[in-house]
Amino acid sequence: MIELFRKKYAPPGSAPGELIPLPVAPSTIVYCVVYDATAILHESRGVPDDPASLRPQGSILWLHFAGQPEVSELRRVGEALHLHPLALEDVMHHGQRPKLDQFDNHLFLELGCLTQHETHPVVDDFSLFLGQDFVVSVYYGSENLFAGVHARLVDAAGRLRRSGADRLAHALLDAVVDHAFPVLEALGERIEDLEADLLDHPGPDALRELHVLKREMLLIRRAVWPARDVLANLSRGDTPQIAEQSRIYFGDVYDHTVQIIELVESYRDMLAGMLDIYLSSISNRQNEVMKVLTVIATIFIPLTFIVGVYGMNFSVNETSPWAMPELRADYGYPVLWLVMLAIAGAMLLFFKRRRWF
Amino acid sequence: MIELFRKKYAPPGSAPGELIPLPVAPSTIVYCVVYDATAILHESRGVPDDPASLRPQGSILWLHFAGQPEVSELRRVGEALHLHPLALEDVMHHGQRPKLDQFDNHLFLELGCLTQHETHPVVDDFSLFLGQDFVVSVYYGSENLFAGVHARLVDAAGRLRRSGADRLAHALLDAVVDHAFPVLEALGERIEDLEADLLDHPGPDALRELHVLKREMLLIRRAVWPARDVLANLSRGDTPQIAEQSRIYFGDVYDHTVQIIELVESYRDMLAGMLDIYLSSISNRQNEVMKVLTVIATIFIPLTFIVGVYGMNFSVNETSPWAMPELRADYGYPVLWLVMLAIAGAMLLFFKRRRWF
Amino acid sequence: MIELFRKKYAPPGSAPGELIPLPVAPSTIVYCVVYDATAILHESRGVPDDPASLRPQGSILWLHFAGQPEVSELRRVGEALHLHPLALEDVMHHGQRPKLDQFDNHLFLELGCLTQHETHPVVDDFSLFLGQDFVVSVYYGSENLFAGVHARLVDAAGRLRRSGADRLAHALLDAVVDHAFPVLEALGERIEDLEADLLDHPGPDALRELHVLKREMLLIRRAVWPARDVLANLSRGDTPQIAEQSRIYFGDVYDHTVQIIELVESYRDMLAGMLDIYLSSISNRQNEVMKVLTVIATIFIPLTFIVGVYGMNFSVNETSPWAMPELRADYGYPVLWLVMLAIAGAMLLFFKRRRWF
Amino acid sequence: MIELFRKKYAPPGSAPGELIPLPVAPSTIVYCVVYDATAILHESRGVPDDPASLRPQGSILWLHFAGQPEVSELRRVGEALHLHPLALEDVMHHGQRPKLDQFDNHLFLELGCLTQHETHPVVDDFSLFLGQDFVVSVYYGSENLFAGVHARLVDAAGRLRRSGADRLAHALLDAVVDHAFPVLEALGERIEDLEADLLDHPGPDALRELHVLKREMLLIRRAVWPARDVLANLSRGDTPQIAEQSRIYFGDVYDHTVQIIELVESYRDMLAGMLDIYLSSISNRQNEVMKVLTVIATIFIPLTFIVGVYGMNFSVNETSPWAMPELRADYGYPVLWLVMLAIAGAMLLFFKRRRWF
Amino acid sequence: MIELFRKKYAPPGSAPGELIPLPVAPSTIVYCVVYDATAILHESRGVPDDPASLRPQGSILWLHFAGQPEVSELRRVGEALHLHPLALEDVMHHGQRPKLDQFDNHLFLELGCLTQHETHPVVDDFSLFLGQDFVVSVYYGSENLFAGVHARLVDAAGRLRRSGADRLAHALLDAVVDHAFPVLEALGERIEDLEADLLDHPGPDALRELHVLKREMLLIRRAVWPARDVLANLSRGDTPQIAEQSRIYFGDVYDHTVQIIELVESYRDMLAGMLDIYLSSISNRQNEVMKVLTVIATIFIPLTFIVGVYGMNFSVNETSPWAMPELRADYGYPVLWLVMLAIAGAMLLFFKRRRWF
Repeated sequence: MIELFRKKYAPPGSAPGELIPLPVAPSTIVYCVVYDATAILHESRGVPDDPASLRPQGSILWLHFAGQPEVSELRRVGEALHLHPLALEDVMHHGQRPKLDQFDNHLFLELGCLTQHETHPVVDDFSLFLGQDFVVSVYYGSENLFAGVHARLVDAAGRLRRSGADRLAHALLDAVVDHAFPVLEALGERIEDLEADLLDHPGPDALRELHVLKREMLLIRRAVWPARDVLANLSRGDTPQIAEQSRIYFGDVYDHTVQIIELVESYRDMLAGMLDIYLSSISNRQNEVMKVLTVIATIFIPLTFIVGVYGMNFSVNETSPWAMPELRADYGYPVLWLVMLAIAGAMLLFFKRRRWF
Repeated sequence: MIELFRKKYAPPGSAPGELIPLPVAPSTIVYCVVYDATAILHESRGVPDDPASLRPQGSILWLHFAGQPEVSELRRVGEALHLHPLALEDVMHHGQRPKLDQFDNHLFLELGCLTQHETHPVVDDFSLFLGQDFVVSVYYGSENLFAGVHARLVDAAGRLRRSGADRLAHALLDAVVDHAFPVLEALGERIEDLEADLLDHPGPDALRELHVLKREMLLIRRAVWPARDVLANLSRGDTPQIAEQSRIYFGDVYDHTVQIIELVESYRDMLAGMLDIYLSSISNRQNEVMKVLTVIATIFIPLTFIVGVYGMNFSVNETSPWAMPELRADYGYPVLWLVMLAIAGAMLLFFKRRRWF
Repeated sequence: MIELFRKKYAPPGSAPGELIPLPVAPSTIVYCVVYDATAILHESRGVPDDPASLRPQGSILWLHFAGQPEVSELRRVGEALHLHPLALEDVMHHGQRPKLDQFDNHLFLELGCLTQHETHPVVDDFSLFLGQDFVVSVYYGSENLFAGVHARLVDAAGRLRRSGADRLAHALLDAVVDHAFPVLEALGERIEDLEADLLDHPGPDALRELHVLKREMLLIRRAVWPARDVLANLSRGDTPQIAEQSRIYFGDVYDHTVQIIELVESYRDMLAGMLDIYLSSISNRQNEVMKVLTVIATIFIPLTFIVGVYGMNFSVNETSPWAMPELRADYGYPVLWLVMLAIAGAMLLFFKRRRWF
Repeated sequence: MIELFRKKYAPPGSAPGELIPLPVAPSTIVYCVVYDATAILHESRGVPDDPASLRPQGSILWLHFAGQPEVSELRRVGEALHLHPLALEDVMHHGQRPKLDQFDNHLFLELGCLTQHETHPVVDDFSLFLGQDFVVSVYYGSENLFAGVHARLVDAAGRLRRSGADRLAHALLDAVVDHAFPVLEALGERIEDLEADLLDHPGPDALRELHVLKREMLLIRRAVWPARDVLANLSRGDTPQIAEQSRIYFGDVYDHTVQIIELVESYRDMLAGMLDIYLSSISNRQNEVMKVLTVIATIFIPLTFIVGVYGMNFSVNETSPWAMPELRADYGYPVLWLVMLAIAGAMLLFFKRRRWF
Repeated sequence: MIELFRKKYAPPGSAPGELIPLPVAPSTIVYCVVYDATAILHESRGVPDDPASLRPQGSILWLHFAGQPEVSELRRVGEALHLHPLALEDVMHHGQRPKLDQFDNHLFLELGCLTQHETHPVVDDFSLFLGQDFVVSVYYGSENLFAGVHARLVDAAGRLRRSGADRLAHALLDAVVDHAFPVLEALGERIEDLEADLLDHPGPDALRELHVLKREMLLIRRAVWPARDVLANLSRGDTPQIAEQSRIYFGDVYDHTVQIIELVESYRDMLAGMLDIYLSSISNRQNEVMKVLTVIATIFIPLTFIVGVYGMNFSVNETSPWAMPELRADYGYPVLWLVMLAIAGAMLLFFKRRRWF
């Protein structure tokens, strides 16, 4: 389950822009690709010693970190590409809120990427620096989300290589955002299963699953809503790093984000309604139980009183004519049965009229 | 019932603008009409081989697909009319969110059309391309919504033929939007029936119907709200494809959308209130049941205790004066009855005072 | 009670601007007044054959329809005064949403007027065309709302006759809007009565009244909220038909609309809270009932068991010393009474400590 | 308690700007002060015959009505100072919504002033006209709110006399707004008392108090929210009557209004949460009651059945070996006791495992 | 627990800008530091007699009060630095709403700082004056929040000393805002503990903790939301005291505030959901209890009636053949047992079918 408090923060009062590695193992694999419209100029695993030297005029650099970057490497990249220290600090502190910062020569964005861990959704951090001729991306999740993008990049016939750095950034963002759809599809199925469960056999297990789903929705929502603003900004176009003709592609990613938000909101509404259904059917069943008890009890309690009466021992006083003469009457016993049947019948009629069964 | 997750999406990471046919049978019927103010110039079923060649100066082309278009045909149309690949992709992936995109030489919009399937509402996709002199529409539903529009178009006296492509687009949108009214009228009747049911005989069936209605409302709402923005944009008029004097007609369609939204919202409010009514009347009945049980039980339990006392066999000790002398008293039995009647009367008085019946 | 779906709509797909009479009896009474600052120039019941001819330079025409206008008459008026066909269509289809349309030479508005039918509120349609020198009004309700306005108009000393057409329109709107106050006052009394009822004797009748009130509020709200926008637009002043110095009067009407909305909203809040009060007091009473049952039952059940024990017939075995020797003990019976009193006392003490009574 | 419908309105259809006295006793005391920076030039109780004549160049006039002004006096003041008839009408109809109107030579505002009546909050009307050199104020409440302001005005050393009319208006508004703090403090105490009550002994009295508090909050809210807009407008400064350097003082009053709103909102949230607490603790207690009943009943009901068995009279058939031989067995009675103790023990164990006590 | 009404206010009607000390012990410790880029020029504890004299050209003054300042000292500082009297008044009245005021030569802000008192969150007031070359800060809490900032300031190598007064203000604000994270982390843990508790053993203690948490959230929220606006204003940059290149640092603080708000909102959502979980599991348990009672009671009540029948003494009439002949039948007793077992079995089957256990 997703934790409530995910933010990893530096100690309050420490200086801004310092890079403090978090207690997470830096299991980093780095992809470093330099390309232009005609060819892949360089490809390596790991950050080169002098990233700036690799880039001929007109080429584009893509650096991708899978997992937490090492502080020294990140610092080296930051210096070579003139990345802002506050942005680098945000990369190190994961659990950040989605945001978009426009710096002098690049823009920086943070998103939460929705993935699946076993049957539960997980939010992983994705950070991206976009300059005129470079893209630096960091993804904390365990899945290899960008295999498709890499394949399209090395494909000589692909359009991706002939477009600018902004279109590479779009391809990465598109992969991150669209990755939410299968996760939400799986959640939709869990919700529909739960719904059937609640209507048919409401019980503590369904309640617990409902609670887990609500909480997951709450936390997905916290990741998705601010992402909307980030992508709206990108598609609106006050950012010089994104070319005019590329805006419509970012607009498409924005549309997908809005669809995701609307799905999440209708899931939430569904879940909110389900608790009511659950409470109503519990209430209904309690009413049924109560009616059975009441019908049985109210029929037999008076009858038990009556038979109790004739179990009294007043007849030991054999001389008094007031000492339970009914017991000595010849037809006492059968008459009593008739009286009791009449009482039971009247009771049943009463309950029938009140529509108790 | 409408599924929670309706979107059909391409695999994450695939290139934008590719046309991947969905696993839906392409049961397409195509209407192709070319007309000007004086005559119908061409009418055929099916996409012509070269759509561009059919159009003399000043004529207007209407291409309508009923059901999913075949990829090859759609591509041919897209090339002839210069439709944007991202928009064509959206046509293929139904389950989209309503939206309006302004491209260079045409605008593209997506709407959900509310229709009725048996007694349940269904949302079908409707897409529309509007250029200066062409309209391309795609409708996924099974009903023939546009028979009326077609009839007004071929009618030589009709105003529709003498107006531009924007008025044809208006006629189509008007038909799509107004189609929601009979659906909502039917829903309104179902809600009023349910209301009467819940007040008179609340039970699990009414609860289930309530749940189904809530869910249908939720999904209708998801289709209708974004449609409002689409139509507001059309009527506000930053779109060169729509002439100034036509705006007021799109404004009329927008007004109808707002009416639909307000109806849906008040239905939702009604439904939200109904669960409370249901719970209250269940609660009320439970209280009634409890009171009956309690009145009967609290009257007879003490009496049963008393008659139990005189059913004890202490009188076997015939020598002790302490061994239930009441049993041997002459008026023991009738006095006991008087005592029990007094107790029952006092109880009834107590309940009367507490207004239990 | 107000119906959920009130809109009367033309069949989807029909041409816009057509005047189709609704199946409502056209019980129209028409008031036709032509006046200027000095005199009433013409007054008749019924639409004149050529409305345009009646109007000398500088005079103002007021045409008022009480009930649904006849199609032919409305068309004649529309042609004489150049009213827009879409607006005329809206007049015929009542159950419209409040709205304000600005046409070339006139503005058109639709409002819902709140009136009282027996003890229930009803929303009737009011439509108004305002040109430089004419006012055309249509009111569907049964009450004669505008007697006061008419009286002020024919009163030679009244200021109304010396002002323009916009002030006449203001007088009509003012009457329509202010008519809501007595209706809301009556509703406020019903709510306060209901409140007292729910606290004193909660029951199914109060619940039903609560439900009816909630529904009425819902539908009043649907009529009132959009009216606010209509009146805000009028008072803000982008409409050339309303003179600058008249704006403050429309602002006054707007203020009244806002007051009405706030009243409606606080009524709704009151009603929402009442259901909680109702449920709480039902819950409370159930708890009381339960306690009475439990106290009586838990005291007498053990005692009944004890007296049951001494009703057993083991003493028939007169030879065994183990066969209920208590029965033969001299003080068996009084000792048993003491034991039972002690048990009952302990129980009562236990309940007292738990504050059950 | 505050009434739901407080507005006093003129009959619908009457002419705007007419001064109709409401059926409230005009218990007016009028303060009339004319001052400049150096001295108090005139002070009287009652409206002078010709208010305009009293005012030398550079002096400031303050007219204050405590209670409903007499129509003739108000009309005289209105004519002398050129007050707008619509504003004068609003002064007469109390129960108005807070508002700010900008007229040609003065501004007019209406506020609700929160005061305490016994332990309940009350909203009284306060109206204020502010011109370049006059302030006219009307306050309907019974308390003398402005004694402090008057004292600061007659104090020769006070800054108030050396400032303009706007600062006098500020002093009055400040007194009106700040008067809400002690009222809200008292309400806060009532809420905290109620909270303790609900957690310790939930009952119908606490419920009733909760309901009263909610209603009072609802009506305070209706008075306070629009006051915010009024004061925001004053502090923002499009009003020529308020000097640039005085704006910051009105900004301070605005801040206080926002604080009041936030207090009211958090009180409302507290109260909303309390009903849940109440229902939960009722629910909890019901559960406790149920458990006690169930434990006692389920232990003794089977035992009572058993002792009932041995109370049967089959032993009257002394010849049959099947006629309750247990009764004649030597150890029948003690064995039965052991059996019954075992059953009771098993039951207790069962309840213990289910954590019922 | 945080009090509902925290504001300390001057008596309504008193003059604005007066400094009235509140009844709080002035346990003030003052830090006074004058520095420039090269050195610490002055450092003292306590306010110097003439603060203005201490400041050479180009130096920056930091004055910090821990606890409520003494009126005379604050007045001296205010005069030396030309601080606005309304702002000084706000410093004295703690419990203020977060706000930002722009005065001629300085800006003034108020924030609530979230700290921990034992296990409960507390909101302490923080006020800050920022001029071109001075910072005056007042913090009412007991913790020493600014030790880190002071250390960075006296550190000759630190960047803080070489930046302007705005960066010092940023460092203080950053410390105040970031101090909320550990507090919220602790709250998150309390919420998760409570959640586990509610699902496993719901009871009055969990309910009380839930209530306390809700209330704390409510009051934290009241402190945090307006802080957002304050910081948004600072980062947007209409304030001349903050240099262009420093804005991004204030933007970072703003981002943290937004994160805090989102955390608080999701905590609130979690807590709102928990009450439902609690009520559902109480409801569930009640249902279980009811079922046990009902099963036991409905099986034994009829059986107890039957054994009661054969405890009646009609057999004393030994001559009548109608006087309970069953008692005299040879197999009466065993047949009765079979009948009773059959009844109990049928009952159990009935309950099994209804899935009661």
